[in-house]
Amino acid sequence: MAVAWHTSLSFNPPLYGIAVASKRFTYQFIIDSKEFAVNFLPFKASELIASIGGTGGQEIDKFQRFNIAKSKPVKTAVPILEAAYAAYECKLIASKDYGDHRWLVEEIVAVHLREKTFTTEGFVDLDKVNPALYLGNEYYLTATKNTIRRLDREAHGKC
Amino acid sequence: MAVAWHTSLSFNPPLYGIAVASKRFTYQFIIDSKEFAVNFLPFKASELIASIGGTGGQEIDKFQRFNIAKSKPVKTAVPILEAAYAAYECKLIASKDYGDHRWLVEEIVAVHLREKTFTTEGFVDLDKVNPALYLGNEYYLTATKNTIRRLDREAHGKC
Repeated sequence: MAVAWHTSLSFNPPLYGIAVASKRFTYQFIIDSKEFAVNFLPFKASELIASIGGTGGQEIDKFQRFNIAKSKPVKTAVPILEAAYAAYECKLIASKDYGDHRWLVEEIVAVHLREKTFTTEGFVDLDKVNPALYLGNEYYLTATKNTIRRLDREAHGKC
Repeated sequence: MAVAWHTSLSFNPPLYGIAVASKRFTYQFIIDSKEFAVNFLPFKASELIASIGGTGGQEIDKFQRFNIAKSKPVKTAVPILEAAYAAYECKLIASKDYGDHRWLVEEIVAVHLREKTFTTEGFVDLDKVNPALYLGNEYYLTATKNTIRRLDREAHGKC
């Protein structure tokens, strides 16, 4: 399942949230197993994201149809994608209906980082990988060293 | 207050969520008034975002210090920024602690769109405005017509 609405929620403990419509096929899997993975894919995998978002798991096996390779999880049984530059193994800790979506809150119990795609400070190294960012309305964007600006908040707060 | 962790939560009713540390000065304003604005700023205002993020409201009046012009709200008393290409007036409907942040869920009761910066379908017109996107770690990015790709999920689901 491709998810457009998601965010970090807490540093300590590390929590993440995703909004899912309960009619989605994947929703019941999450509720039943109480675990899932959040896979972060590179811009070059945008077509795969669109393909996953455009199909339903009740009709096809997406792993087979789109030839999706998996890595082994370490603390859960969730699918970690070979194509992901980063992935979280998550355990569901809370959920609540807000309007037409259900808000699923999960604790990150393991983190997978593609070797050499992160700096020593733990940030994505844009010389090594360009993340896929979803803008909505079927538009995808990426970040490159040439298209980003670093603005230190402490310095700018003093301006 | 500049917020890094936020997402849409529901189409109908229109709900939005933001994660705020309860130690933030703005937090108590939101809890007391039960309303606030979400202002979406253009990339050219990135310095303003960094300045707002780098200062505390208990020390200075940010509106005065950074010369921030306001427009009139229509259904609340929240500050709509002149620099914003879009803004939501929100009423707090729920909140819950998740780890070290509080998750604030709000209903969007009024929407302000800068004239001519949206297409007739209701999407940001990238010929008219380039949104500021925050990547984390003080990095800001924008979207332009030249840096985005449109990938129709229905078409890609059939590939």
